[in-house]
Amino acid sequence: MSKTPDSAVRTYIQQQRTAFLDDLAAWLRIPSVSAQPEHAADVRRSAEWLAAALKETGFPTAEVWETPGAPAVFASWPSDDPEAPTVLVYGHHDVQPAAREDGWNSDPFDPVVRDGRLYARGAADDKGQVFFHTLGVRAHLAATGRTAPAVHLKLLVEGEEESGSPHFRALVEEHAERLAADAVIVSDTGMWSEDTPTVCTGMRGLAECEITLYGPAQDIHSGSFGGAVPNPATAAARLVAALHDEHARVAVPGFYDGVTDLTGRERALFAELPFDEERWLRTARSTALHGEAGYTTLERIWARPTAEVNGIGGGYQGPGSKTIVPSSATVKLSFRLVAGQDPDHVEKAVRAWAADQVPAGIRHEIVFGAATRPCLTPLDHPALQSVVRAMGRAFGQEIRYTREGGSGPAADLQEVLGAPVLFLGVSVPSDGWHAPDEKVEIDLLLKGVETAAHLWGDLAENWRDAH
Amino acid sequence: MSKTPDSAVRTYIQQQRTAFLDDLAAWLRIPSVSAQPEHAADVRRSAEWLAAALKETGFPTAEVWETPGAPAVFASWPSDDPEAPTVLVYGHHDVQPAAREDGWNSDPFDPVVRDGRLYARGAADDKGQVFFHTLGVRAHLAATGRTAPAVHLKLLVEGEEESGSPHFRALVEEHAERLAADAVIVSDTGMWSEDTPTVCTGMRGLAECEITLYGPAQDIHSGSFGGAVPNPATAAARLVAALHDEHARVAVPGFYDGVTDLTGRERALFAELPFDEERWLRTARSTALHGEAGYTTLERIWARPTAEVNGIGGGYQGPGSKTIVPSSATVKLSFRLVAGQDPDHVEKAVRAWAADQVPAGIRHEIVFGAATRPCLTPLDHPALQSVVRAMGRAFGQEIRYTREGGSGPAADLQEVLGAPVLFLGVSVPSDGWHAPDEKVEIDLLLKGVETAAHLWGDLAENWRDAH
Repeated sequence: MSKTPDSAVRTYIQQQRTAFLDDLAAWLRIPSVSAQPEHAADVRRSAEWLAAALKETGFPTAEVWETPGAPAVFASWPSDDPEAPTVLVYGHHDVQPAAREDGWNSDPFDPVVRDGRLYARGAADDKGQVFFHTLGVRAHLAATGRTAPAVHLKLLVEGEEESGSPHFRALVEEHAERLAADAVIVSDTGMWSEDTPTVCTGMRGLAECEITLYGPAQDIHSGSFGGAVPNPATAAARLVAALHDEHARVAVPGFYDGVTDLTGRERALFAELPFDEERWLRTARSTALHGEAGYTTLERIWARPTAEVNGIGGGYQGPGSKTIVPSSATVKLSFRLVAGQDPDHVEKAVRAWAADQVPAGIRHEIVFGAATRPCLTPLDHPALQSVVRAMGRAFGQEIRYTREGGSGPAADLQEVLGAPVLFLGVSVPSDGWHAPDEKVEIDLLLKGVETAAHLWGDLAENWRDAH
Repeated sequence: MSKTPDSAVRTYIQQQRTAFLDDLAAWLRIPSVSAQPEHAADVRRSAEWLAAALKETGFPTAEVWETPGAPAVFASWPSDDPEAPTVLVYGHHDVQPAAREDGWNSDPFDPVVRDGRLYARGAADDKGQVFFHTLGVRAHLAATGRTAPAVHLKLLVEGEEESGSPHFRALVEEHAERLAADAVIVSDTGMWSEDTPTVCTGMRGLAECEITLYGPAQDIHSGSFGGAVPNPATAAARLVAALHDEHARVAVPGFYDGVTDLTGRERALFAELPFDEERWLRTARSTALHGEAGYTTLERIWARPTAEVNGIGGGYQGPGSKTIVPSSATVKLSFRLVAGQDPDHVEKAVRAWAADQVPAGIRHEIVFGAATRPCLTPLDHPALQSVVRAMGRAFGQEIRYTREGGSGPAADLQEVLGAPVLFLGVSVPSDGWHAPDEKVEIDLLLKGVETAAHLWGDLAENWRDAH
């Protein structure tokens, strides 16, 4: 088994660069905005365009998969080595809404290159990062002289990610057999920065609930009754206040059960990243840091579970005043979970805690939504090391490690398919996801191509060694 | 100075009863709903009707006073004794909205008598209780053979009480000289019950504020940033939670400064009232009592200052969930004040407390509305004793003492005119203020007439003795 010669890969990619960018631009011209019903036909057109492009790339199978919402695309290219591992690449072909008048310097659906950057809605999130896999697999074949990839390669590109992936889990469950994989590669994330290429090793999970507290059967006069009966808005506030202790730790008993603690090595790796507090605060639109005592900001957002109030409401919220004791108040909470935490256990813990907090005379109801599990790849996982080596060859730099604070459909793949989830993304924070003037750095995009070109061979080789 | 013979008063009132009720019914037919612009002409017609009725009663002066909103009525009848005290009666001629389909058994603006009760919007609140003063003063004259009242009698009947009296303070200030009085009698309250006639000795004051807490400059992603920056909804909740201590006392330092404590006699008088906890909870639409430790429910709502959350809101309150750290949250608070408390001092205390509670990274703004001062008549005030004696003669029962938990424009009269405020009302809790089938008990209404008939002579006599 020989390594793919790096210079041959690079040469091949440079030869294909113009055609690759032209094809990507054609796809970016389709305004596949899943959140806007008037673009439903465009989302379908985007799926059909991608399926055709994947066929042209060489995937023997490329299909549009229907859902009750927008269609997804599935493609598959078996390896010529039956013993090879199976890898499933995840991405999405729908995009966020965009309009020139939102502050774009050019039409968001008329891609344009300026200063080595390709500007268009979806350039980075996520069409560009899906599309680099097409040239990636061809570069892999060209440089190695193979006619089929070194791994059994599958792609699943959904069409509703920007709308919260409402039908994704059901789609994965329905097609679990055809999606079966030894590892999942999510290409829908980014790196620390242009200068600091990184690999993401996990995302947090998410449990969400809404707690409604009921007091008087209707709003009552605060002059006649206030001060003598319990107020559900006060009870809601006291509940929220009790959510954290004085060290900003979540005070729900049992919440931290099972949490996988950061290792010394992980903390050291996070600390190596060039974190600039002032710049981070600007991105957070905030003026001060605040969080769990004993952890750095990166540790807090990437590796520690949290409880956050997303919304609170009760009583009179219009202009002026209304002297009432409100009849009810509602709190929306979300809990970010990390590896080792079980959403069901967290739900039970929160229910018990809430029941314990609510005072006499106040009735409460809790509704939990569907939870998302956390995912975390151990640093020494052989597939992760393959990604790191492939990126290292493409970037010619040491690859550092990050995590994502958010939660995503990757967890569904991990759970339904029982496969570890890895992340391969080359987008950078300045790419403007969900914002005007979204762009992708063309050089980085081609590094993504190059990484994919190296990855399949490395993965096949080392998977075999490891298993 | 002879006492008005009680039987002569009663006989006179019985003779006039039919004409009195017919006149009141005519007034009740005018739908003087101040809150509904389409009734603006009716509110004016109501004022004009009342002014004419007061002239016919014998008031030498009866005028419609304009405001930027609905008109008020002023009437004046000087005593033939220049040394007599001046009394200003306060009431209102506007009414709450009402429609047959709200659940009325008869047209709310077509008065009807059933079982000794007069049903109509405004029968008790407040046309009936204003109107008993017309027959009251005539009964006073008839029974004593006077041609002018024993006191300089003034009436001020506003037209916007049900809309929050937005122009009342300015009206009183504008006409302060003509309204000058030694005592104010508010006829817009009620008694404990049919069986337990009472006199109200005070109302609480009111200070209201809105506190807005600002966090991130816009809503930010709770996955990317949550747990590492302060959340203004959490800060708002912690602020509200800090409002009361574990004894349900208001925890704002300085809030209780100056509070006039209940005397042993006042507590004993409250305790004499036949308070039924279950019935009270039904009226409060609540299932449990909750309030300041060491006080009974009546003490809590009548004689203790309170802090109440009237509304709270921040972040996402729509259906489902939204994983954000909200950019702001708002809390509406109202403080009921009792005698001895200064609204300006309370405002300063709340501002200092809030500034102290808000964590780093959260900016806050507090806006206070116009405050209402508390009013309290000492139990041994000679004018209060006159009211109690006059009621006692009318009802033939011991008169007990209550207070009102709410706040009202009476405080403006007390403050601008510098006169003590007394309360004379004969309505009962079952009268259905602001509700369908509002009614007044005709027997009680005539007791109100009788009380007024006795009151002016008693007040003139005892005022002289006391001053």
